[in-house]
Amino acid sequence: MDILNTGDTAWILVSTILVLLMSIPGIAFFYGGLSKKKNVLNTMFLTFIAFAIVSIIWVVFGYQCAFGEPTIGGFIGVPNNLLLQGIGITSLSDTIPTILFIAFQLTFAGLTAALISGAIVGRMKFTAWMAFIALWVTLVYVPIAHWVWGGGWLMQMGALDFAGGTVVHINSGVSALALALILGRRKNKTLLPHNLGYAILGAGFLWFGWMGFNGGSALGANGLAASAILVSNIAAAVALIVWVILDIIKVGKPTMLGAISGAIAGLVAITPAAGFVDVSGAICIGIVAPIISYFGIYYLKEKLGYDDALDVFGIHGLSGMWGALATGIFAAPVIGEAAGLLYGNPEQVIIQIISILVTIVYSFVVTIIIAKVLDIIMGIRVDEKTETEGLDNGLHEESGYNL
Amino acid sequence: MDILNTGDTAWILVSTILVLLMSIPGIAFFYGGLSKKKNVLNTMFLTFIAFAIVSIIWVVFGYQCAFGEPTIGGFIGVPNNLLLQGIGITSLSDTIPTILFIAFQLTFAGLTAALISGAIVGRMKFTAWMAFIALWVTLVYVPIAHWVWGGGWLMQMGALDFAGGTVVHINSGVSALALALILGRRKNKTLLPHNLGYAILGAGFLWFGWMGFNGGSALGANGLAASAILVSNIAAAVALIVWVILDIIKVGKPTMLGAISGAIAGLVAITPAAGFVDVSGAICIGIVAPIISYFGIYYLKEKLGYDDALDVFGIHGLSGMWGALATGIFAAPVIGEAAGLLYGNPEQVIIQIISILVTIVYSFVVTIIIAKVLDIIMGIRVDEKTETEGLDNGLHEESGYNL
Amino acid sequence: MDILNTGDTAWILVSTILVLLMSIPGIAFFYGGLSKKKNVLNTMFLTFIAFAIVSIIWVVFGYQCAFGEPTIGGFIGVPNNLLLQGIGITSLSDTIPTILFIAFQLTFAGLTAALISGAIVGRMKFTAWMAFIALWVTLVYVPIAHWVWGGGWLMQMGALDFAGGTVVHINSGVSALALALILGRRKNKTLLPHNLGYAILGAGFLWFGWMGFNGGSALGANGLAASAILVSNIAAAVALIVWVILDIIKVGKPTMLGAISGAIAGLVAITPAAGFVDVSGAICIGIVAPIISYFGIYYLKEKLGYDDALDVFGIHGLSGMWGALATGIFAAPVIGEAAGLLYGNPEQVIIQIISILVTIVYSFVVTIIIAKVLDIIMGIRVDEKTETEGLDNGLHEESGYNL
Repeated sequence: MDILNTGDTAWILVSTILVLLMSIPGIAFFYGGLSKKKNVLNTMFLTFIAFAIVSIIWVVFGYQCAFGEPTIGGFIGVPNNLLLQGIGITSLSDTIPTILFIAFQLTFAGLTAALISGAIVGRMKFTAWMAFIALWVTLVYVPIAHWVWGGGWLMQMGALDFAGGTVVHINSGVSALALALILGRRKNKTLLPHNLGYAILGAGFLWFGWMGFNGGSALGANGLAASAILVSNIAAAVALIVWVILDIIKVGKPTMLGAISGAIAGLVAITPAAGFVDVSGAICIGIVAPIISYFGIYYLKEKLGYDDALDVFGIHGLSGMWGALATGIFAAPVIGEAAGLLYGNPEQVIIQIISILVTIVYSFVVTIIIAKVLDIIMGIRVDEKTETEGLDNGLHEESGYNL
Repeated sequence: MDILNTGDTAWILVSTILVLLMSIPGIAFFYGGLSKKKNVLNTMFLTFIAFAIVSIIWVVFGYQCAFGEPTIGGFIGVPNNLLLQGIGITSLSDTIPTILFIAFQLTFAGLTAALISGAIVGRMKFTAWMAFIALWVTLVYVPIAHWVWGGGWLMQMGALDFAGGTVVHINSGVSALALALILGRRKNKTLLPHNLGYAILGAGFLWFGWMGFNGGSALGANGLAASAILVSNIAAAVALIVWVILDIIKVGKPTMLGAISGAIAGLVAITPAAGFVDVSGAICIGIVAPIISYFGIYYLKEKLGYDDALDVFGIHGLSGMWGALATGIFAAPVIGEAAGLLYGNPEQVIIQIISILVTIVYSFVVTIIIAKVLDIIMGIRVDEKTETEGLDNGLHEESGYNL
Repeated sequence: MDILNTGDTAWILVSTILVLLMSIPGIAFFYGGLSKKKNVLNTMFLTFIAFAIVSIIWVVFGYQCAFGEPTIGGFIGVPNNLLLQGIGITSLSDTIPTILFIAFQLTFAGLTAALISGAIVGRMKFTAWMAFIALWVTLVYVPIAHWVWGGGWLMQMGALDFAGGTVVHINSGVSALALALILGRRKNKTLLPHNLGYAILGAGFLWFGWMGFNGGSALGANGLAASAILVSNIAAAVALIVWVILDIIKVGKPTMLGAISGAIAGLVAITPAAGFVDVSGAICIGIVAPIISYFGIYYLKEKLGYDDALDVFGIHGLSGMWGALATGIFAAPVIGEAAGLLYGNPEQVIIQIISILVTIVYSFVVTIIIAKVLDIIMGIRVDEKTETEGLDNGLHEESGYNL
């Protein structure tokens, strides 16, 4: 067919914009609302600057290394087309313009980087964060994206990751944990969301922006995209209700913070599975995700003592692992082009476990190294006085509210 | 044409996401901003939990009863495909995937349920609300959706309802009134919006999310969708200005709360007519809607003494009735496939009046019964202490702001 | 091909909605957050009422004068089809429905009018603003839109303006300056944003709404739209970082207000160039824009003493001029259908300079006249008492917060 189907293009253009929305105001308001009042601007700033830095790196050499062909032994792509030289507006990737695929993938990279910031609010130097993000997207995100989506070795092995269980969520969650470990705990670890309305707003943006994220990953305007949207919404809805029930069991009262945490845990878990599972699978995924994240946040974190301030590891890391595993269990041939354990293909579970473990180890180790090197070179933590008075005033001489 | 036109699919995918946006952050912030500070989280929570509950019911059996074929005497559909079993990603409804139509309709059901919450803020038990929504969507929403859109008796009779004048707005407005009557009045009935910025934000989401709601109801990416968007915007703009003028006449000063109330009244009224009327018709609809809602809120409510806290009946119920009637007056054959009174078809007005009355009576009676039964079984109202101290602290042990 | 490609239609439908989002909550929250607490509602109201007024004028006669054919000597179109009479849902403009093109252009007109309000917050009579907007859109916006986009003399001369460098940004920036000059300075000129979170939210809406604005101007779902989105995002990202660096150089600390100002300056500058330049061009445009706007805001404004409260001239006017000029420099034939100075066509720079100067002079002179006439007839400034106590209470008897 020599006429480009512009319906696909229309849908991926919009999906790109929706992921942009998640990546910037979505994360900024979710994290900003949960942070302390004295750190709200700094928290939002971490998201904005991370997205800006990744945007530039992505078009200069990031996309090229992640998706360039041929692959160098399955580990990294050959970076042709630096600065997108030679890629015209008529170049195609399947049924959409190549430039559009680049833009869509850009928003994923920016989103993943911004997600990390939730673990380190209230205590990291702004310049150190800028340096960290530039190194991290190059050394951690780009290789993993290549392995899973860009023709690399995990893709060749048959790992399933529809919209970023490994690449986005396990990756950001584990990197967040690693960075938080090097950075150390806050002086004052209480979680007292200064403006839950902002966090609810951010969760709302994430919920509907996620539809572009998961639905757009079908790379076409078709039944698969519709199914991805529907199962994503179901997983979010189920997980919201399960978290509410867990809150009632544990503290006797449902909380709004729990509800939005549940919805996001459900969305995280469905992400790698969105193009592979049916409604029944989505319900199972949505039931289990909040239980795992709840356990991680209220028991594991306490026990191990790391300071993952806004629970990036607890929500994205843990529910991401569950989602990547569940994809190997529930993948239904009637939806996507893969079969999971329940449909007679136990091998898929093994492949999923390998891809999960590889992502965990690689993200953790490389992030630890980057953070440690930066800490030695420039110091990554603010001084005690700045931490106590708040980063908005200390680092930016601004305050979030003059009411 | 054997190739599915994916332009239509792209547009309905996006429309689904836009209605999702209206349904969740739109309503949550509109109502949350207008509520008292002590109830802001509970108010937003009502929206989130209603949407989550409806999402699950819709895919399990709700869609099937509303749109299943054949119809049982015009009253309810035969619920095949429970849990969407048997509906694959290549099934089609007209020019879009069936799964997409299900997802689009899901957002309407969730939106309608969430709208009801505005009438009962500040005094309803959270668990009672959860039970109410599950029963209400099953016993009220699903049947009416079947009658008007799913091949039922009102549809067979020729009732016109492009995007939900009866199914969404009269239905939610009248049900809100019924539930508020059983629940009783608040102790303190003053309306003092604690954060008008939130309400303005919610109104903004509603305004542009409504474009997916009304435009998407064309079920195609075509001139009819464009026309629906354009007339919806015009009705909102005209109604905003008329409400501003009414405010100037009555209290001497235009208010921002009036402006957004007017815009929403205009959007409500144009909803059933959006695919049937031209710009002139939209202007007439937009002029009258705020006058009717204004009258309802400032005279009728006072006179009759019901406590429709955030004026769900006043705005959605009354402007919804006007819109459904006006569709029968202004429907222009040059736009949609129907003619109204002004185009030589007075019979359409009769049909519209019947569909309005049927919706009012059915919604009111069944909602009263549901609410009464729940009240007897579990009690639906919080105790006086909780109402006075606020539901955020009383029911959720959270507070909206720690500034 | 006799079948309308509805992929294009789907994309422009969504683009229209995205520009609507920029135009209403985007501008309302950006300006509202930056204003003083006592003026927040009035500031947002200016945006809402401007958009509503322009919406009505546009369908009654505005579109017809701006885009009606034939042109009367290149200066104004013949206004056939008043109230859109005679334009059906099957009329086409290129590959999209005519009604959709009208709706898309409506959002541009509304956006441009609303942008002006940033210069005059805190001191203008509400009724005078309503009258001003009605006159301004008729006498300033409509003619310039005709000249540049509607077949008028600047278009015939070959002026390039992809999504509104002259028509939207120079026009709104210069008109804002003119109106502020007639209105006079505020009593208290300090800029103390009362709620930076709102401004960040508004900037987020603008950032992603801009993708519909610039991407939709391709008027198709194609590689050009994708390229426009990608270069717009790059320009925003680069300009954000440059402004952060300027802040560090000047005051030693990066500010969040600077970051969002930079992003918007970058988006303004790329607007006329979005369909003509490649990534390298976008980076150059993004580097220079914040430098020019920074200079304008911190030196020029101080020096000349005008009171452009929220820097509409500084950001939209100055970066708009740079963008319109830069289009003539960086336009790359591999992207759009034009060549700039760097691609061997120095003449384009001359044409761009002429279109910039014409827009500046016309906007400035006619806006001055409109403002002066209104000031004589009705007075355009509030009294001193109202200004001091705040416009929310003085003009609307409302307050933004009851926390």
